[in-house]
Amino acid sequence: MALSYAIIGTGAIGGYYGARLQQAGCDVHFLLRSDYEPVRDHGLTVESIDGDFTLPQVNAYNKAQAIPPVDVAIIALKTTRNPLLPELLPALKPNGAILSLQNGLDVEAGIVDRLGAQLSLVPTILGGLCFICSNKVGPGHIRHMDYGKLLLGAHNPENQPCPPPALLHSILHSIVEDFTRAKVDTETTEDLPMARWQKLVWNVPFNGLSVVLNATTQEMMNDENVRSLITTLMAEVVTAANTWAQKVSPESDRKLPDTIAAQMLTQTETMPPYRTSMKIDYDEGRPLEIEAILHRPMLTAQSVGVATPAMRLLYQQLSFLNARNIPQ
Amino acid sequence: MALSYAIIGTGAIGGYYGARLQQAGCDVHFLLRSDYEPVRDHGLTVESIDGDFTLPQVNAYNKAQAIPPVDVAIIALKTTRNPLLPELLPALKPNGAILSLQNGLDVEAGIVDRLGAQLSLVPTILGGLCFICSNKVGPGHIRHMDYGKLLLGAHNPENQPCPPPALLHSILHSIVEDFTRAKVDTETTEDLPMARWQKLVWNVPFNGLSVVLNATTQEMMNDENVRSLITTLMAEVVTAANTWAQKVSPESDRKLPDTIAAQMLTQTETMPPYRTSMKIDYDEGRPLEIEAILHRPMLTAQSVGVATPAMRLLYQQLSFLNARNIPQ
Repeated sequence: MALSYAIIGTGAIGGYYGARLQQAGCDVHFLLRSDYEPVRDHGLTVESIDGDFTLPQVNAYNKAQAIPPVDVAIIALKTTRNPLLPELLPALKPNGAILSLQNGLDVEAGIVDRLGAQLSLVPTILGGLCFICSNKVGPGHIRHMDYGKLLLGAHNPENQPCPPPALLHSILHSIVEDFTRAKVDTETTEDLPMARWQKLVWNVPFNGLSVVLNATTQEMMNDENVRSLITTLMAEVVTAANTWAQKVSPESDRKLPDTIAAQMLTQTETMPPYRTSMKIDYDEGRPLEIEAILHRPMLTAQSVGVATPAMRLLYQQLSFLNARNIPQ
Repeated sequence: MALSYAIIGTGAIGGYYGARLQQAGCDVHFLLRSDYEPVRDHGLTVESIDGDFTLPQVNAYNKAQAIPPVDVAIIALKTTRNPLLPELLPALKPNGAILSLQNGLDVEAGIVDRLGAQLSLVPTILGGLCFICSNKVGPGHIRHMDYGKLLLGAHNPENQPCPPPALLHSILHSIVEDFTRAKVDTETTEDLPMARWQKLVWNVPFNGLSVVLNATTQEMMNDENVRSLITTLMAEVVTAANTWAQKVSPESDRKLPDTIAAQMLTQTETMPPYRTSMKIDYDEGRPLEIEAILHRPMLTAQSVGVATPAMRLLYQQLSFLNARNIPQ
């Protein structure tokens, strides 16, 4: 029995995964802002490396209150818009879940902080990481260029690895089933925080430097100096992650794979030239996700005594560029 | 009795100071490249905050060999063109001097290295720092926007402070006299290396970041994050300079003034918005002086055990931007 979903933020991520779920027969409700009218009238179009498809009719909303109660609210907004979440969250069915498909550290805890007051019963909080190249190229028009994998896990308020209890397992399992039926390669992790750190090993250098240097992944990989700089940034993230994990779970052997940075460099080398999501945001005049992707990890590193001078410098540069970039 | 001068590189710096010397009655010979014909035919024009002036006729050359022997060869090229120096140096009179008016560290030693083989008698090697806002705005057309002070000193191969011996004193003294008569505020220093380090405290952050952030001095000063980053970079340069000085002169109290960074921040705040020389080079597609301004200081810091992570990151970013910027 498929679950029902609300997609909060119908852009490159929400539009793609939501359309996939609807295509697979799920009951999906899309919350929109500027694209509300065109999507209400003409539905969604997905150009995908896995085959193009159109959904001529979708459930489109411009107010969260109009969405009927759903099993799962998927948060696919940029983290920069999270302050608006209290107004954007629809009603959940009993035993419902919130699933954040956002980048950065401490995303789930941030959502609980923001929503705590208005949630009569705290729902299951899940998080996920999207390994996808996609972009919104027009109103209701998503282009899926490469990859697409999802990695999902449960939020644990103590930041411990989290073998899912029965209830949790139940809804997470159903979500995985729905995505799998929707032809999305979906895996689960018992350690969502470390999965978030692992993704940051890539996101910190490539997202950050792509904006500062106005460069694609390939241009950066082809330059010896930038490769060296990427390696420095990756090492800072890995050290921060492992030190944090040992502090939070002293008895465990929680750590990122030793080869993670080398692996990511090799993978990126074989990717087609790729404009990162932060660069796309920058080019389109949108606020950059520097708080979630750089500042939170920096502060966490600092809290466990790890110096991150390169990340700090990059964050300071991006803060300047971000402030100047946003239309006043 | 005024000296004779050859100006090697008739741009924003060489064009300005050379024109001032000729205006004051010195015998000046200008070496030119792309501007040779227009300057030969129409001379030099200087628009200056201290009053505009034109020299309808100047001694213009497109080959160093054509310049008659002079007392002083002033090197006013970008350091990026120093590999060409062996072909660009004119003959010197006996007891002549080479005066480098270039930015960066170890500039004089680099010149001696390059010219050593071809100099039958090593001339007096002098160095100077220009505190000036000027720009070449057209062929033979210099715009002098602000400041203009020169700080001159003698090169000491052991990098020690260098109270001038009689001969040195004699030609340095005459040069100071000529510049002073030419209405250039000119001072001397006995410690040229530390004067170079001191100028780097400003040049490293402001030149470097102006290119990466595409920003004027004022935009950078107005942003809290960039100010913090500038402060970090300045602290690295100061620590490198002082550690280096203690290593080279263990018995001395050679060090930069404790308040130097704070002073420079305050001064920069009161300056009009200013496009740095490195930014001008970048905008005009010229090679950036990152070896002299960033790489040499970094390597020197490293050689005395001082970590400069922020400078290193900035250098790596600039290396990428520089390589991409130069027309292939």
